[in-house]
This record gives sequence, structure tokens and C-alpha cells, in this order.
Amino acid sequence: MNFLEKLEAAIVRSHSLLCVGLDPDPALMPWGKSIADFNRAIVEATADLVCAYKPNIAFYEAQGTDGLKALEETRKFIPDGIPVILDAKRGDIGNTARAYAQSLFDYFGADAVTVNPYLGYDALEPFFERRDRGVFVLCRTSNRGAADFQSLIVADGGKRLFEVVAARVAEWNRHGNLGLVMGATYPEELKMIRQKYPEIPLLIPGVGAQGGELELVVKYGMDMAKRRTIINSSRQVLYASSGDDFALAARRAAGELRDKINRILSGMEGDSF
Amino acid sequence: MNFLEKLEAAIVRSHSLLCVGLDPDPALMPWGKSIADFNRAIVEATADLVCAYKPNIAFYEAQGTDGLKALEETRKFIPDGIPVILDAKRGDIGNTARAYAQSLFDYFGADAVTVNPYLGYDALEPFFERRDRGVFVLCRTSNRGAADFQSLIVADGGKRLFEVVAARVAEWNRHGNLGLVMGATYPEELKMIRQKYPEIPLLIPGVGAQGGELELVVKYGMDMAKRRTIINSSRQVLYASSGDDFALAARRAAGELRDKINRILSGMEGDSF
Repeated sequence: MNFLEKLEAAIVRSHSLLCVGLDPDPALMPWGKSIADFNRAIVEATADLVCAYKPNIAFYEAQGTDGLKALEETRKFIPDGIPVILDAKRGDIGNTARAYAQSLFDYFGADAVTVNPYLGYDALEPFFERRDRGVFVLCRTSNRGAADFQSLIVADGGKRLFEVVAARVAEWNRHGNLGLVMGATYPEELKMIRQKYPEIPLLIPGVGAQGGELELVVKYGMDMAKRRTIINSSRQVLYASSGDDFALAARRAAGELRDKINRILSGMEGDSF
Repeated sequence: MNFLEKLEAAIVRSHSLLCVGLDPDPALMPWGKSIADFNRAIVEATADLVCAYKPNIAFYEAQGTDGLKALEETRKFIPDGIPVILDAKRGDIGNTARAYAQSLFDYFGADAVTVNPYLGYDALEPFFERRDRGVFVLCRTSNRGAADFQSLIVADGGKRLFEVVAARVAEWNRHGNLGLVMGATYPEELKMIRQKYPEIPLLIPGVGAQGGELELVVKYGMDMAKRRTIINSSRQVLYASSGDDFALAARRAAGELRDKINRILSGMEGDSF
């Protein structure tokens, strides 16, 4: 089963487009919990409500090798049927990109990863060629500074840089395993990309803590089959409570988000899943 | 002592602009050597010939937590006076970038890092604000695919994307701790950037195995004071021999490179260091 098949099965089973970002931050986590214990509690509390988990490797690297051991452990207790998107935003030249692909896919067991397009095709190819895995290329990110370079208008054709990136990714997608990262905080850009590429998988971070408005995100980001759009929330779920009830509060926050997404979907044309 | 002061002192002491990339690849290393033992032998054999070491973290991550432990160990046996540039090419949104900065600077003890500009200013700011550390922003990379996006011509002003990146980095350099990564394989681009920014530190990978021509790189890449241009070689030094004499062969290769750079310099106008 390749990444997209696994994702689609998880969406149908959980009745959910919600992905929970596993970004353990010691400053926000309940006092005294280890990263692995925190993640385990979050996963146990939310596994039936999500279509994927997305650990951002930065939060593990910040704790050094102990943090990365916690990531390995986390990978093991995420149920088999739920795909893991390892948010690493890597990008390096050919032989180095190959080392990163080996680390993320083989060592850490990611079903899919995020990558940065700045270095061009040959930096991405070692990821793309792994047909059973998914690769989400950064297109329009959710942060304030995203416009600094991503929105520069390119002379030939008058497209913005992120649109050129999307067009190239669509060309490069000959194994059908590529997708795009589109920040929830820029709904107009999201709408345009979804209209142009109705079938490409989109990973949409930035709802909740980052302020992306859920209704627009669902309406604009949804694909035809409703099975290739992943809406990620991290802090809103993980840190719904900083007390002993954090897992229960995370479950409540994840359930509310899932249901809210589904209510918006059911108000739209076409069948729900 | 901040990064640039440390770098300049190391350049003067070693009489060298050569940086050796510590990219341990089990397929190329002498059989049976651990990464830490391999690095230790390379560092002992070359420490008086280099102005910096540049481990690319991908090669350590490829071996999982054991690899990262070897990176920690390597950091410890690199002599204090030689700056370590951790080649990580990171780029992520604000709170995540902060986690990466913590990992690279504080946990792994990097004097300088490489970062990717695609996400814009706020993704870079957590690195920039560390005034005692250096930050090299990817500008024109050394790989074939570099042109895919980096050479797109931007409508407003007719500059190419990498030129816009260089201009923004020069604007953002208010603490004086920023530099650019310029691949040795594109000498015309290197010449243009160096002419426009005569004082900005440049990290130049891609000589040797990647085919960048040393003479042009030195002539075009050199700054006025000759103390802000770092020429990196990885494979040509590390894998000069795959036999028991690998450390001796690495020393010979590093010495030849250093001397060749210095001969080219001495044929140019102005004083040598």
C-alpha cells in the first residue's frame, strides 16, 4: 500500500481530514512529561479522529539525540494504518539529499515527508523516486515572511514563484506521489492552486494557533474526491490544556476540529466521504 | 569572539581559505571505521591546513541517533580555534526555526550554519539574531538543478531570484553575521555577487568532486581582505584514498588544495594574508 492509498483508507476510516502535528515543546507540555510519554498520550487520545500525524523533526532535534530517540519511539506506537508525515523541509544537493531520504524514510520510517524546492529538481529527485512514499513540496507557506520570495512575480509568464513551483511539481509528478504544502493563512492562494490542480494532494498547516480560517480553508482547499486534502493542527490540539487533563482536552479539540471540517464539507456540493 | 573573528583568526593561523567538509559516507569510508574514528583521523591530519570544518548533518542523520552521537563527538575533538559550520540548510516557520536554531547552535555547538531562504525573513530571524554565530543563506547552489528556481528572472527589476536573495540578505545583515552560499560550479554568478557585495562572507562549496574550477573560484570569489571567502572541499579530501593511508592521503589532498589556492592568490593584486 503506498502513501496515498494509506492516507485515503485512513480518511475513510476516521471520517476525518484532520492531521495532528506532533510538535512537542517542553515550554508548553505538561510539567514533568517526557516527549515520548506526551506523544503516546496524545496519539492514544486522538488516533480514531485523525487521518495522519505530522511530527516536525525540529522539535525533536532541539532535544538532541534524546529527542530523536523519542521520535523513533513515537513512530513505533503510531498505529500501522495511520500515515506519518515527517515535516522536515529538507533540501540539499544530490548525494546529500539521498542521505536525508535514507534518514527520513528508512531510519525514521516516514510514510511521507516535506521538502524545500529552492535547490531544484535534482535535490528533490532522491525523494520523488521513492514511489511508495509521499513527498509534499513547500509551495506557499503559512508564515508572515512567506511573501518575501514565494510571491515574487517571475518575468516570463507573470506567475508568482509559488505558482511556478506548483507547476513544476505537477510536471514532475510522474509517479503520482507528490503533493504541495499550502498555508491555511493564505486562502486566496490556496483557492487558486486547488482550482488549477484539482487532484494534487495538499497539506495545509496553519489553522488554529496560526490563525488560518477553517471555513475558507475547507471550501477552497477541498479536492473533488475529498481524499487528498490534509488539514493540520498542532498547538490547538496538543496544548488545549496544560494540566493533567491534556490528553482529554486534546481529544476534545481534535474531535471538534474534525466535526467542524465535516460540517463545512456537508454544506458543500457533492457527497461526503 | 564571534564567528567572523574566529574565522579570520583561523585563516591567518592556517594560512588557508580551505574548509574541509566532514561528510562521512559509509560507502566511501575505509572499511570497518566508525564515523567518529574516521572524522577524528581526518581532523588530526588536516587541522593545521584548514580555516574551518563543515559537517553536513544529513550524513549523520542517515545513520540515525548513532550518527548524531558521532556528530556530537566530532564537535568535541575539533580544536577550539577552528570554527565549525554546520551545513543543515534549515528553513521553517518562526517557532520551529527557533527549535532548529537551538538544536544546531546550542545542542550541536555550531559556530555557523547554512539556512534556506524560501520561507522568508521570519523563518531566518531566529538564526540571524544569534549575533555571535554565523549564518550562510543559500543563494546560488552548486547542483545542476540550481537554475530551476534560483535563476528565474523576477519581473520587478529584472534580477534573478538568487540576486534578490543576496540583496535581501545584505539588507538583513544588521548584526554583520550573515553570509551567502555560492556554488563553485557557477563562476559567473559568483563573480557578479562578489563584485556587488565585496565584504560579505561567502561559503563556496563544489570544488573538486563537483567540478568547480579552482582558479576561477579564487579569482572571482575573493574579497578585498581575503578573509571572508571559504572554499569547501569534501570528497576530494576525505576520500583521497580508501585504504589504510586515508588520513595521510587526506592531509596531502588538503595541503595541495590550500597551496594551490594560495598560489592563485599570490598571482592576484594586493597582499596575501
